[in-house]
Amino acid sequence: MTMVLSTVRQVRAVAKGAVHQLLVDRPWNVTSRVGFVVGLGLLFLVPGMLLATLIEWGSSTSNSEVSLGLGALVTVAAGVLLVTFTRLDEDLPPASVFAAVAWTWISCSFFGALPLWFSGALSSFDNALFEAVSGMTATGSTVLSPIEGTGRGVLMWRQIMQWYGGMGMVVLAVTILPFLGVGGLSLITVEAPGPTSDRLAPRVSSTARRLWALYGGITVAIAAALMITGLSLYDAVAHAFTTAGTGGFSPYDHSIGHFDSTAVEAVMMAGMLIGGVSFTLHWRAASGNPRAYGRSSEFRTYLIAVGAAAVVMSLLNWADDLSDLPNSFRNGFFGAVTLSTSGGFANASDANPGGDFAAWTPGAQALLLPLMVMGGMTGSTAGGLKVLRAQVMAKYMRVGLLRVKHPQVVARVKLGQRAVSEPILQRVAGLVALYALSALVATFVLAALGEDLITSSSGAISALSNMGPALGDAGPTSNYLVFTRPARGVLMALMLIGRLEFFAIFLVVVSAYERTRRLHRVKLRR
Amino acid sequence: MTMVLSTVRQVRAVAKGAVHQLLVDRPWNVTSRVGFVVGLGLLFLVPGMLLATLIEWGSSTSNSEVSLGLGALVTVAAGVLLVTFTRLDEDLPPASVFAAVAWTWISCSFFGALPLWFSGALSSFDNALFEAVSGMTATGSTVLSPIEGTGRGVLMWRQIMQWYGGMGMVVLAVTILPFLGVGGLSLITVEAPGPTSDRLAPRVSSTARRLWALYGGITVAIAAALMITGLSLYDAVAHAFTTAGTGGFSPYDHSIGHFDSTAVEAVMMAGMLIGGVSFTLHWRAASGNPRAYGRSSEFRTYLIAVGAAAVVMSLLNWADDLSDLPNSFRNGFFGAVTLSTSGGFANASDANPGGDFAAWTPGAQALLLPLMVMGGMTGSTAGGLKVLRAQVMAKYMRVGLLRVKHPQVVARVKLGQRAVSEPILQRVAGLVALYALSALVATFVLAALGEDLITSSSGAISALSNMGPALGDAGPTSNYLVFTRPARGVLMALMLIGRLEFFAIFLVVVSAYERTRRLHRVKLRR
Repeated sequence: MTMVLSTVRQVRAVAKGAVHQLLVDRPWNVTSRVGFVVGLGLLFLVPGMLLATLIEWGSSTSNSEVSLGLGALVTVAAGVLLVTFTRLDEDLPPASVFAAVAWTWISCSFFGALPLWFSGALSSFDNALFEAVSGMTATGSTVLSPIEGTGRGVLMWRQIMQWYGGMGMVVLAVTILPFLGVGGLSLITVEAPGPTSDRLAPRVSSTARRLWALYGGITVAIAAALMITGLSLYDAVAHAFTTAGTGGFSPYDHSIGHFDSTAVEAVMMAGMLIGGVSFTLHWRAASGNPRAYGRSSEFRTYLIAVGAAAVVMSLLNWADDLSDLPNSFRNGFFGAVTLSTSGGFANASDANPGGDFAAWTPGAQALLLPLMVMGGMTGSTAGGLKVLRAQVMAKYMRVGLLRVKHPQVVARVKLGQRAVSEPILQRVAGLVALYALSALVATFVLAALGEDLITSSSGAISALSNMGPALGDAGPTSNYLVFTRPARGVLMALMLIGRLEFFAIFLVVVSAYERTRRLHRVKLRR
Repeated sequence: MTMVLSTVRQVRAVAKGAVHQLLVDRPWNVTSRVGFVVGLGLLFLVPGMLLATLIEWGSSTSNSEVSLGLGALVTVAAGVLLVTFTRLDEDLPPASVFAAVAWTWISCSFFGALPLWFSGALSSFDNALFEAVSGMTATGSTVLSPIEGTGRGVLMWRQIMQWYGGMGMVVLAVTILPFLGVGGLSLITVEAPGPTSDRLAPRVSSTARRLWALYGGITVAIAAALMITGLSLYDAVAHAFTTAGTGGFSPYDHSIGHFDSTAVEAVMMAGMLIGGVSFTLHWRAASGNPRAYGRSSEFRTYLIAVGAAAVVMSLLNWADDLSDLPNSFRNGFFGAVTLSTSGGFANASDANPGGDFAAWTPGAQALLLPLMVMGGMTGSTAGGLKVLRAQVMAKYMRVGLLRVKHPQVVARVKLGQRAVSEPILQRVAGLVALYALSALVATFVLAALGEDLITSSSGAISALSNMGPALGDAGPTSNYLVFTRPARGVLMALMLIGRLEFFAIFLVVVSAYERTRRLHRVKLRR
């Protein structure tokens, strides 16, 4: 881990100097902010690729180090070319920042697929791309089957992609974009993992560094805890990457069912829950204010929702004789955490068949779908609609019902002590509608491509929420090869939409929120 | 039909005189607006019960006329007692009007169940109540199996309940409440089947009479058209009742698959579509302004959505070799109309197995669910969320996306030429959230009670949208006995919530809309 961090730090320092010089000189004529940002994004992937190459080179099981190295080389070349022959124009409106981030994500998936394709782990490029999109969006759906037998370095690259994808993309955007001359405040929108980001730190790049350190620290802590439970260094690091990023990839066919260990599952549940919490909250807590957790209504709602769902599902599975009470609770809690945080790990194994949530009793399965839709907290590595938005929709409901009783009442939607402004409410409702419409359309398209209704709808929701496995035929003990090739294309698009569309709307919501709060403060001062 | 109308008119005239006298004298002390309104509601059911009794008496197949008469007698007694020993207080705030309507609906279901129970058509009272709730909410789910073999009068009573339930409840509230000294404007909210009700007529009771006449006229027209296609008077009238009310009951086990006639299906599709259109629009068109249809964006959206879904589903079923092209289109269009208008008739038969939409290809089934959720137009006899609310949610989405591109733009949600005010938008979003939450909770409860996921979710949506049949085990060729007894209890609640909750919110939305428009007009005048 420290090796990775120091490598990253060096690359960043070099890149920072070079980029700065380029920006000062501006010797070329191709003005393309997207090209420039994509180039930097690709360069950012290289340390991860090199780490994977090293692991492959050091392992005895396979010899795909040339393929991995070639992938890294192509990525470096593309990144250097883009950074050299494009430059930014002066101002970056938020929508253009978003476009740059979106293209970076797509390009990183494309180049991230190269090592998988070159190594022959996935024989067709579209399958390699599916795997890379699933990685870069921290989703966790896989078409690699069997997983075991593939080179250890190649498998580690899958894990590293999810680490980048979970928090990485936000950190990437924040650590690179500041060099580009983009002013501080407009970028707070990209940097912000939560609506209260302005509290984190006044300067953009120092905030980015802090988030990065926090994410790295959490990853190291998870890896250490996993080693204490008896996992090898490789296994611990591999799973720590995808746990902190709530990704869900594992180098084992049975996911963490491979270990059949309650201790491993407990550590990973804790890790996923941490990944599913706002990193702003984590930062505040780490800065000596651990009460910040308790004061966040989103945090409380999140824990209560996951806990209550876990208890109910455990009891339902137990009542249905799926397994005995302790095992029902083990699997119920693991399922609730892995699906709500969009982790998507599976703990099912021959020794613990009750972990296969696609085989749970219908009542328990009916609870899994809303958990997937809800996802984790805003500003976390988790996918889904996010708890905060579910809360806003619940308040809408309350206001609607209040008016029936007291038509004259002026009911305002509040979160905590603060009233939420109309534009934000409208966009939350818009986003929820967008999510629902995307899910409906995708369900229809997947069903029309031949999947049954349960597989289609759960597959669509799983991809949109960046979860991983689904129900029906695409359950945790299966893989996404059950979908036809065009269906997998649709799912790729959904995974990207899930992360980027939400990111876009989120960006806008935050900037409006910031404006509202600044206005508010100005008023108070007068 | 004319006999029914004249009977109704006489009863109303007598009731009007008596009630007026009672209100003037106010000789009793029990002030209960709910009791009084419920009493009037029950009396309103009596003509329908008597008609059913007459038909039963005249038919040779059964002799349940005593049971039906007894049901009518109990209902008359309860109604007279309530009207005699309760009275209204002076003012009726909207919420209290709603409470009265809700209790009327529940009580009418209770008393409507009596003839079914007394006659032995349904052996247990809870099954009779299920059938009556399904009738009074114009849903169409049935637990009567087999249907054929039951007395013709008893079966006609089921049809009549749906006629009352579709438009009847609105008409009931409008024709009775005006006698109660409730002032005009506050009632516009109850009377209004659409947000532009004030255009209908200045006086509440005359508006009510017009809506009633319109509804009756449409029913007669459907019956006449059905007779032209060759149906007997009994069959034509029975199906006209449930077509105009978009209910879905039929006196035949195979629903209208019994006739296996494209002509009958065409007439019923036209009838359901008419029932699914706002009655305000119908009134305007009937008053010599047929262009009103074309000017309504809700109307255009409604037709386009149903038509497009029908074409796509037809082609998908044809591609899946379910039946040949003409039959695929016949069944695709019938399915789209019967599910979107919440009719719920089935045209499946041994001769036309392709009508069983629970056996359609998954892609086509995936389109049926959103059609069920959407439902018909506001102010129609159809259930569901209504097209107008789907439009508002679509606008929300557009505003949300607009802001990503142009964060400074002040985007307003408009319907036609008119901006929709914030309180209305909030309540639409609240209602949609309420619908989604109800559907999720109900799916969970039904699944926990042992149904599979498809049956649970489609059953919940079908009941909430007052549709009738569902998918999975509760498809159009099946019945609701596949649900366990407690699950049927849940479904009963959903049917009532579907109609009454929407009614409540709708009432409030309309009153706010009216206020906004009045304010607007006042401003324009100044």
